[in-house]
Amino acid sequence: MSETEYMGSDDLDAMDRRYRVNLVNSLTGFKSANLVGTSSTESGINNLALFTSAVHIGADPALIGIISRPDSVSRDTLNNIRENKTFTLNHVHEGILTQAHQTSARYPSDVSEFVAVGLTPEYLYDFEAPFVRESRIKVGLSLVEIQPVKINGTYIVIGEVKVIVTPKDAMHYSGRLNPESAGSLVVSSLDTWHGTQRKASLTYAKPDQPVRYLEDDHEASRNPGA
Amino acid sequence: MSETEYMGSDDLDAMDRRYRVNLVNSLTGFKSANLVGTSSTESGINNLALFTSAVHIGADPALIGIISRPDSVSRDTLNNIRENKTFTLNHVHEGILTQAHQTSARYPSDVSEFVAVGLTPEYLYDFEAPFVRESRIKVGLSLVEIQPVKINGTYIVIGEVKVIVTPKDAMHYSGRLNPESAGSLVVSSLDTWHGTQRKASLTYAKPDQPVRYLEDDHEASRNPGA
Repeated sequence: MSETEYMGSDDLDAMDRRYRVNLVNSLTGFKSANLVGTSSTESGINNLALFTSAVHIGADPALIGIISRPDSVSRDTLNNIRENKTFTLNHVHEGILTQAHQTSARYPSDVSEFVAVGLTPEYLYDFEAPFVRESRIKVGLSLVEIQPVKINGTYIVIGEVKVIVTPKDAMHYSGRLNPESAGSLVVSSLDTWHGTQRKASLTYAKPDQPVRYLEDDHEASRNPGA
Repeated sequence: MSETEYMGSDDLDAMDRRYRVNLVNSLTGFKSANLVGTSSTESGINNLALFTSAVHIGADPALIGIISRPDSVSRDTLNNIRENKTFTLNHVHEGILTQAHQTSARYPSDVSEFVAVGLTPEYLYDFEAPFVRESRIKVGLSLVEIQPVKINGTYIVIGEVKVIVTPKDAMHYSGRLNPESAGSLVVSSLDTWHGTQRKASLTYAKPDQPVRYLEDDHEASRNPGA
């Protein structure tokens, strides 16, 4: 057993800025990795930015939130979403890992990260916001609301799901997608990338029954009646 | 290459409720798994609930958000946070997987999920909210604000990090924690659990430099000067 480290508020306050950023960004555990695609109505320039903060808000209506920081990288994304009310989420897999990471660089607003990092904008369903052709699981959203977080000037951007694009073999007949079969990666802290290995699907939890491992596998087969 | 499936708003509207819930819960990709510990000042009863929605809001002040749904399971957690203004996040590893999943069952408010599923409340640093002794990476937070999401009645609960508890060997000298070395799991959809496998740490992205793989490994060593 490893020794345990305890850190309190005083320790946090005394930390070097970079150390603290790395540590605090690690605390929630693993994070999803999504490239957020937007475009500027005004300039016509596409923007692509890596977000590790996508969060499920609700299934009906189907809502997803992302956290936008008040810095230069996110600001293009936020401005574009304010302008044309759409954005896309595109899962990151190993084949586009370095390109995805490179979108975090602070490019000027007149540079499209698609061009700068070498990914391909893809237009589907008359969406103004571009998808990433090289990504496998993609979601198109329309803006619902932008909530400011007063204490630190960030914004919670909430969108409603309008389009879903996925490889058929990542779909389970129950409706579950298996991001593992699409090679979707996760991030820890700010810069470390991990693949996944499925352990188990568990039954719906009920107070009077122990949880069981589901027999069927989270793969291939798709509900013909769905 | 697998065939591609496209789904639009009409397809979403036409879906069976359960299918839709499973699908929409899959769209952001993998999710972190945290047991949220709270306690009721009034009744003294501990509550423990699985949340897959923890999201990094900022590093200074150190802020984390969780999404609380307006249903009976989350309501105990939300009420307790409103009462005593503290909550804890506790990473889930394979050794407590079934117990963690079982906390999702709809127990009555007068039942402590700690007792019901067999996990141990642990009190540290005079926090009113209990940590989970069996968990390895744990965070104690004090309530900052609760933002309602009007469109679906959920709440974004934002807390400030006050206490961090972690195995020393999950700490990197840069401040990064390695949740993989602590065995932290991720969730896809609502019920499928995955371990992780580290691929790479990448350099900080700059516009004029290609991203490189960092040489040093995300393990053991700790900054003696930190």
